[in-house]
Amino acid sequence: MRARHKPWAEAYINERPDIVIPEPETLKGRWQEEFGNDRPIHIEVGTGKGRFITGMAEANPDINYIGIEMFRDIIVTAVQRAEEADKPANLRLLNVDAGRLSEFFAPGELGRVYLNFSDPWPKTRHAKRRLTHDNFLRLYESVLPPGGEVHFKTDNRGLFEYSLMNMTDYGMQLRYVSLDLHADNPEWNIMTEYEEKFSSMGQPIYRLEAAFRNRTDEGE
Amino acid sequence: MRARHKPWAEAYINERPDIVIPEPETLKGRWQEEFGNDRPIHIEVGTGKGRFITGMAEANPDINYIGIEMFRDIIVTAVQRAEEADKPANLRLLNVDAGRLSEFFAPGELGRVYLNFSDPWPKTRHAKRRLTHDNFLRLYESVLPPGGEVHFKTDNRGLFEYSLMNMTDYGMQLRYVSLDLHADNPEWNIMTEYEEKFSSMGQPIYRLEAAFRNRTDEGE
Repeated sequence: MRARHKPWAEAYINERPDIVIPEPETLKGRWQEEFGNDRPIHIEVGTGKGRFITGMAEANPDINYIGIEMFRDIIVTAVQRAEEADKPANLRLLNVDAGRLSEFFAPGELGRVYLNFSDPWPKTRHAKRRLTHDNFLRLYESVLPPGGEVHFKTDNRGLFEYSLMNMTDYGMQLRYVSLDLHADNPEWNIMTEYEEKFSSMGQPIYRLEAAFRNRTDEGE
Repeated sequence: MRARHKPWAEAYINERPDIVIPEPETLKGRWQEEFGNDRPIHIEVGTGKGRFITGMAEANPDINYIGIEMFRDIIVTAVQRAEEADKPANLRLLNVDAGRLSEFFAPGELGRVYLNFSDPWPKTRHAKRRLTHDNFLRLYESVLPPGGEVHFKTDNRGLFEYSLMNMTDYGMQLRYVSLDLHADNPEWNIMTEYEEKFSSMGQPIYRLEAAFRNRTDEGE
């Protein structure tokens, strides 16, 4: 996702450490303390302008949410949105690279990972940057409990085809697949900015839920 | 697939035992003899009116093809089509129930299974009739070599979603997925009757290739 440069973004973010955690590595293994409860913690990798994660936090007060976005000029919109929503107590944002996920979370500390309309990186030589590449799946697996799930939706056909193949090849179990989410029209669906735009253009939205398998044969 | 009753079909089929094999169980383990060569044998389960299997036989003379269709009033059109194509030497048809597949073929005797626009059986209580249900996957696995592939295409979203989940859950590896086959427009694609009709209505055609895994942990 690209955004025009916002010179005020850095100060705006730094002034709101209650929303955007400044040094998330210091909370590794202690996120339930940060939230002040022992409810499950779900993250969104590539949270963009934050419409999904803010909507989820408001709709599901019994879940804690963390939105992760590496681009400062984009996440700043998510911060503004969280402010407008009166800073939901169950929402935090991280302005970090998702490739460092295991520095911020202990094994099994998270309950679920959401990926929404991730950058498709269509060129084969960029496959490693796709958020459903093995390198990222390994990261998610390292912070989820056995059987933990990744929920993924996109309008990008190529990325979804790749993800179906790669996630199952990795050993994940598909627990839900929709090849036209909006035709199914589930009442629990919270739309992202992209989703509303592309869906209104008649583009089908693809969605899957996939679970890591228990790796009992590999020990711990 | 439904067809109106054709009282002449039985005699028409019985008079052409060179195309429609009358007692296929007698050829179990000896199909290469029947074809007179040791080329791979690919089957289509639910061959319908035979446009796909006849087209494949003409396009790929180095492969032997067997089309299987349980409904006499439907397969008779495939027989007529084979006649019009001058009875390709690498094509046979079987007017039998695919549930009996292992009675007709020895383990590893087939090279590939095609499923095209299979009946979706949308009701959950009919799931066992879907040609990608475990019961059928077990049958295909029993007549394919280790790593043998099933190639499946359909316009039916629900059946494709089910098949993605069920085939990978069974342990099959997805080797190819297209969620809009005709947008990719592969030059090797041979259309079925259904495919032409539904695609011209703007319906995306879904396609996958999935391979059975080597089950080295199960002995053999």
